[in-house]
Amino acid sequence: MEKIVVIGLGLIGGSLALDLKKKPNRTVIGIDASKENIQKALELQIINKIGSFSDISNADIVIISVPINAIPKLTEQVLDNCTENTLVFDVGSVKDNVCNAVKNHKNRKNFVAAHPIAGTEFSGPEAAFNGLFTEKTVIICEANLSDVAILERAKQLFDELEMKTTYMGAKAHDKHIAYVSHLSHISSFMLGKTVLEIEPDEENIFNMAGSGFKSTVRLAKSSPAMWTPIFVQNKENVLKSLNEYIKNLETFKELIENDESDEIYAIMQNTNRIKNILNGIIN
Amino acid sequence: MEKIVVIGLGLIGGSLALDLKKKPNRTVIGIDASKENIQKALELQIINKIGSFSDISNADIVIISVPINAIPKLTEQVLDNCTENTLVFDVGSVKDNVCNAVKNHKNRKNFVAAHPIAGTEFSGPEAAFNGLFTEKTVIICEANLSDVAILERAKQLFDELEMKTTYMGAKAHDKHIAYVSHLSHISSFMLGKTVLEIEPDEENIFNMAGSGFKSTVRLAKSSPAMWTPIFVQNKENVLKSLNEYIKNLETFKELIENDESDEIYAIMQNTNRIKNILNGIIN
Repeated sequence: MEKIVVIGLGLIGGSLALDLKKKPNRTVIGIDASKENIQKALELQIINKIGSFSDISNADIVIISVPINAIPKLTEQVLDNCTENTLVFDVGSVKDNVCNAVKNHKNRKNFVAAHPIAGTEFSGPEAAFNGLFTEKTVIICEANLSDVAILERAKQLFDELEMKTTYMGAKAHDKHIAYVSHLSHISSFMLGKTVLEIEPDEENIFNMAGSGFKSTVRLAKSSPAMWTPIFVQNKENVLKSLNEYIKNLETFKELIENDESDEIYAIMQNTNRIKNILNGIIN
Repeated sequence: MEKIVVIGLGLIGGSLALDLKKKPNRTVIGIDASKENIQKALELQIINKIGSFSDISNADIVIISVPINAIPKLTEQVLDNCTENTLVFDVGSVKDNVCNAVKNHKNRKNFVAAHPIAGTEFSGPEAAFNGLFTEKTVIICEANLSDVAILERAKQLFDELEMKTTYMGAKAHDKHIAYVSHLSHISSFMLGKTVLEIEPDEENIFNMAGSGFKSTVRLAKSSPAMWTPIFVQNKENVLKSLNEYIKNLETFKELIENDESDEIYAIMQNTNRIKNILNGIIN
């Protein structure tokens, strides 16, 4: 019987548990700091049973899916207590902090720093569903510091989930993900904030907003508990992307102020290239 | 035989023509400045036949669906040439400019200033489709300046399209629409621009971007020909919304810089209210 311990039963941990529990000869044990969450996860049959930290000492696989600021220390604690054959991986969307925290740990080789690029704007065990990871990308960082056999088991697990595994340095990961994910969330949250501020009478938003607004502001429904630590932990890269975004907005604003239609047109036309890129993004 | 003339066979004009053409005893005649577009519209059977400006003199309905900067002057010309029973309406997403242009026209009563809140990020006659307007909202501005019978015919036409008709002043329309539509487009275009600039190696975007990025940047695929004049024509409101958006981004940036997690959390949590509003937006 393969024993998998999932720490943190939110959208990601819960969806992983659901998918992994389908295979026979496997027990998925859940741990969560919130009693309500873990009870919910059991009720929803996301996990086979509720466990405790002591379950780590004989687990085959430990998955760490807690808020990003709690990952580095928890990963150290898990590595302190795992067996020499335990595969330990996290699923956080910032990777340099955890890689740094464990780089000199005696059991570093048991750890795989992973980021499955999957999610929705919903959160908690109720948001978990089967198949969230199908055909999505998972990025493994600093793979050369993981044991070859451990890494291979991680790869097999992601294959089982029908994911596409890619490899990258942690710093490169954190830089790129700031642009293609973290910045999107900020732009969407601030759009939502701006509209809510100007439209105290929400009726107007109901009547006038179309599908375009809905799409652009969708991420403003995301969990503050998940995203606050992400922005702070990936601060340097997030600030850089945010500065460039604001600079572009300022420039565009000045062009509108000065009726520079040709230049406005050219910028938008050039940005239309994003079409081809989006066609390459699955889902 | 009811005669409808549609001027401008892009996504909106084309989709209107398609829907209206379904009813028997009706001829839908198309006019477009682009020979290629009008030929395409005929080929795709979006219109019954190609017409010319002289068709306006005995049309029952004239629909003006050209880029926003061309609407005021064209509407004047159409009103100069229509019969006393012709219903003339435009479909532009800025309303104060056209209302102003025709407010003293002798045939002002024939005109209905309309804005159907519908569209996609695609453009041209190829993008037109049946049912684009179903269950969408249409806003009619300065309705008190339209003839009651003419207005009623417009309302019936929108009913036929299964649209929900609402009424608003032109200035109020232009202010609100800047926030819930025009600003979304700018935020999305500038997000696309920022990411394209930092990721000259597009492979990284392919691999790392998830469904969240795709949703937020979707509007950056929109037509520069349509959107450039909108931003310029609704300049005052667009600049105001853009200033407030940039101010919110700056504040959020400073909070991240200073690790103000509690405040970041509070702002996002408060913005989560957008969930309830989005649930009210159809499609």
